Amino acid sequence: MFDSLPTSVSVYEVSPRDGLQNEAAQVTTHAKVRLIEALVDAGCKRIETTAFVSPKWVPQMADADQVCRLVPKDLGVSYSALVPNARGLDRALASEIEEIAVFVSASETHNRKNVNKTIAETLAAFEPVIGPATERGIRVRGYVSTVWGCPYEGETDTAKALAITQTLLDAGCYQVSLGDTIGVGTPLQTKRILNAFLDQIEGEKIALHLHDTRGTALANVMVGLELGITTYDASVAGLGGCPYAPGAAGNLATEDLVYTLHGMGIETGIDLEKLWRAGQMAAAIVGRELAGKVHCAGVQSLAV
Amino acid sequence: MFDSLPTSVSVYEVSPRDGLQNEAAQVTTHAKVRLIEALVDAGCKRIETTAFVSPKWVPQMADADQVCRLVPKDLGVSYSALVPNARGLDRALASEIEEIAVFVSASETHNRKNVNKTIAETLAAFEPVIGPATERGIRVRGYVSTVWGCPYEGETDTAKALAITQTLLDAGCYQVSLGDTIGVGTPLQTKRILNAFLDQIEGEKIALHLHDTRGTALANVMVGLELGITTYDASVAGLGGCPYAPGAAGNLATEDLVYTLHGMGIETGIDLEKLWRAGQMAAAIVGRELAGKVHCAGVQSLAV
Repeated sequence: MFDSLPTSVSVYEVSPRDGLQNEAAQVTTHAKVRLIEALVDAGCKRIETTAFVSPKWVPQMADADQVCRLVPKDLGVSYSALVPNARGLDRALASEIEEIAVFVSASETHNRKNVNKTIAETLAAFEPVIGPATERGIRVRGYVSTVWGCPYEGETDTAKALAITQTLLDAGCYQVSLGDTIGVGTPLQTKRILNAFLDQIEGEKIALHLHDTRGTALANVMVGLELGITTYDASVAGLGGCPYAPGAAGNLATEDLVYTLHGMGIETGIDLEKLWRAGQMAAAIVGRELAGKVHCAGVQSLAV
Repeated sequence: MFDSLPTSVSVYEVSPRDGLQNEAAQVTTHAKVRLIEALVDAGCKRIETTAFVSPKWVPQMADADQVCRLVPKDLGVSYSALVPNARGLDRALASEIEEIAVFVSASETHNRKNVNKTIAETLAAFEPVIGPATERGIRVRGYVSTVWGCPYEGETDTAKALAITQTLLDAGCYQVSLGDTIGVGTPLQTKRILNAFLDQIEGEKIALHLHDTRGTALANVMVGLELGITTYDASVAGLGGCPYAPGAAGNLATEDLVYTLHGMGIETGIDLEKLWRAGQMAAAIVGRELAGKVHCAGVQSLAV
């Protein structure tokens, strides 16, 4: 175990989009940009910034164009935005963002409830997005959600999730992030799923997007590290709850991930103390306590 | 990784003692016994019930004798109580409890702040406890705290922790539980520490008592499982905070541990739904939200 750990890991920060998306109270554009600035200052190099989705469906992301315009530029940070369709791509192109992300679920029921389409229809709708984006030099990332389990269908068929992932890579995605969207995954399952994926796909094309709903996210990260996965999505302070269980934890907290990686001698390029301060800002922005463990423990005790 | 996992694990439930000990408001004896009954009903077989310590120092444990008298008997449950000295042993003997526990820190400063003695003095004080107890057929468990790190001294010398553990085993302890008392441990460190211990000591004589202050407890459990450790201490709903960081998480939540073990096909003998209900009772008893992840996510979502 841990005989050939990666020397560095790429942390993909999702708080400005995935973290804030389900916040009921509108967060100001100013606050979003301040949070992104704090994350950049902490050393985050890949930040999911916003979503070019219909403001009717996701009012929290209505200011996507302004956010993209206001984030700090020329600091070597890759910003990305969710883009569900050609209309979203037009807005992304106008914003001059360098990376976009498309998303689909590995569960038909979850996908239908999320975007009111079948998985096949969703993948087909990406054709006028992924091709034209890559032709314009925009990197495209894919998300496949509910890879571990679905709140409606139970455990997910790994072969189906793998086929969807392969379709996204074939269409031009440079990386696909596999989501344990409801945080049900346990480590032996993670080993089984990742082995199936890594049998077909290079490790660098796979990222893990693990929710910490049942506290298993970091244990699953250990399996990913052991199998050579080097990109992990996380959200500062654990911002972004679990929509299926009010009050429960959602995204893995970036501070917990970074604390653990640094403790294992794995570099992230992130300053944990500054990251912790960004997490304090996130809690202030949403006006409530967030669930991240290092966030709650406080950075002063990290001297140990 | 995980090529030879244990088929079952022994969960050592510490909520009635370690969980409640630092509660400022006095918990009634009735409430403590109700919680223990709920844990027994959930299938917990080893429960740290109380402490025979001076009521002057730990008023919360002043009812140790009554608690021992009132817990459900003849159900195959091993109850234990902390015993710091000969006076405590006399009370334990009168209570007819079958297991006691002694505790010492691997850090001089932490030990002195905790019991106002050097480590050597503390170990010497156990002589009139461990010997007489084992002669009376009482099992004695040892705790060594701050094995990963100390809030005052930083990272702990593993050789020192190992020597203390060996002393406790030589004195007659059947098992020593190694504490990451402030929850600073990361998995590679855990691997290094456990390998040093397992070089000298049989795995069944070692238990892990991991705090989840920085979210790393379950990731560290993965290392323990990989190395063959089969006893893990935990506290229902994560009851029992971190005394060094108010509001931060303390003990690993038993529900999170059991959820993960069951997901890996490892038996515990515990019914997770009943355990979750015991955790709800624990939160009601202390009158506030507790930090356990499965505790917060809710058992209804476990159908997935």
